[in-house]
Amino acid sequence: MADAAGAAILPYFRSATLGADNKLEDGFDPVTVADREAELAMRAVLAQLRPDDGILGEEFAPVEGSSGRTWVLDPIDGTRGFISGTPTWGVLIAMSEADGPVLGVIDQPYTGERFIGAAGLAQMTGPQGARDLATRNGTALDQAILFTTFPEVGTPEERAGFERVSGKVRLTRYGMDCYAYALLAAGQIDLVIEAGLNAYDVQAPIAVIQAAGGVVTDWQGGPAHEGGRVLAAANAELHAAALALLKNS
Amino acid sequence: MADAAGAAILPYFRSATLGADNKLEDGFDPVTVADREAELAMRAVLAQLRPDDGILGEEFAPVEGSSGRTWVLDPIDGTRGFISGTPTWGVLIAMSEADGPVLGVIDQPYTGERFIGAAGLAQMTGPQGARDLATRNGTALDQAILFTTFPEVGTPEERAGFERVSGKVRLTRYGMDCYAYALLAAGQIDLVIEAGLNAYDVQAPIAVIQAAGGVVTDWQGGPAHEGGRVLAAANAELHAAALALLKNS
Repeated sequence: MADAAGAAILPYFRSATLGADNKLEDGFDPVTVADREAELAMRAVLAQLRPDDGILGEEFAPVEGSSGRTWVLDPIDGTRGFISGTPTWGVLIAMSEADGPVLGVIDQPYTGERFIGAAGLAQMTGPQGARDLATRNGTALDQAILFTTFPEVGTPEERAGFERVSGKVRLTRYGMDCYAYALLAAGQIDLVIEAGLNAYDVQAPIAVIQAAGGVVTDWQGGPAHEGGRVLAAANAELHAAALALLKNS
Repeated sequence: MADAAGAAILPYFRSATLGADNKLEDGFDPVTVADREAELAMRAVLAQLRPDDGILGEEFAPVEGSSGRTWVLDPIDGTRGFISGTPTWGVLIAMSEADGPVLGVIDQPYTGERFIGAAGLAQMTGPQGARDLATRNGTALDQAILFTTFPEVGTPEERAGFERVSGKVRLTRYGMDCYAYALLAAGQIDLVIEAGLNAYDVQAPIAVIQAAGGVVTDWQGGPAHEGGRVLAAANAELHAAALALLKNS
């Protein structure tokens, strides 16, 4: 599915037609066309190999399944990054059961990086070959690296909550879209805090990060797989420290 | 030189020893070691092939040359990105003559992307093969995509200047280090605005962007190759529009 999505998207990435004012003949932005073609390509794989599973995708109507499993798809997470040419967008694929995602893939087809998490599996492949994914331990909050996509995180209240955490960490960085979750799973950064997410934005990151040893919840410590406010941490200690600062938001 | 620098750096990128508190035995951070090894590797190439040229590098003392040419080197531009695992740092190499840089290279060895600019040459190579670099035209300021590394651009006055421009554009993105200049040269974005730069941060970007058709100056419209405040624009019209908003900073 990730291969099929990447093949659909890459012809549009950094294409000459992706200028600010350029639209294709049908009136859609190229990023929208790439989004739709990629989701159709993934749905075609599911129709063939998993016809009884449900589908929740960003671009088309949900499909009710009969198997108890649902595939949760975001063909291009990070469209602002995509239209800017940054390789920080990704194809997000999760397989969800009753209690949330049990398998997740974050795929960056331009760099050739793929991050996979499931029970007993936490691995990335990329320019440096295959590597196990493991979140890092032993970093105190005041030494942590925190990522979020926008400096303007969510509502003013949500932004204030974010800033209570960002004021305590060593380094805050922006602009990475779903790539930030992949870096957390790979043990490179310590915290990701976001708000206003959809289920399809967060289910693949949850599965990858949990498989790598991290913790993902909402800002109250509850399940995050329906979206909304998300706190992802490299380990339980950092999660608790950040959650204490976010909880009153 | 870029090959030599990349070979020196990549073993340290996303290495397990690059945790927040990890130091090598000699007391340096791995990023510092990578920085120094990469600059030494580039200086070794110059000693062999360009012994009469000068060298201005971030990590070691300047070398006076006798040829009138100086190589300006930043082995890892974007160390915060580097320690976070984002592929937005780069090796910067410029060759400068009396009036500024005449050749520039922005190299990202992890993604395998190389952006080169010189008289009559503006090209990138990467995952999608070789492509000509050309900045884009026809994007009005209110449709422009603007990048900078930090939301906290420079001093409060500099930040206010930046915000006068960011308040007028379609999209502002952060966190890309030197990669933003490469995206501008590749016609993906329209403006980069930064402050507090050093000569070795900006000379390679200037050469690449100018070769691709863009304009780079300081915030007064003068030469930017000594560093400081930098405005890079895809074309003269956008440059004039942004400069008018920055000039009073």
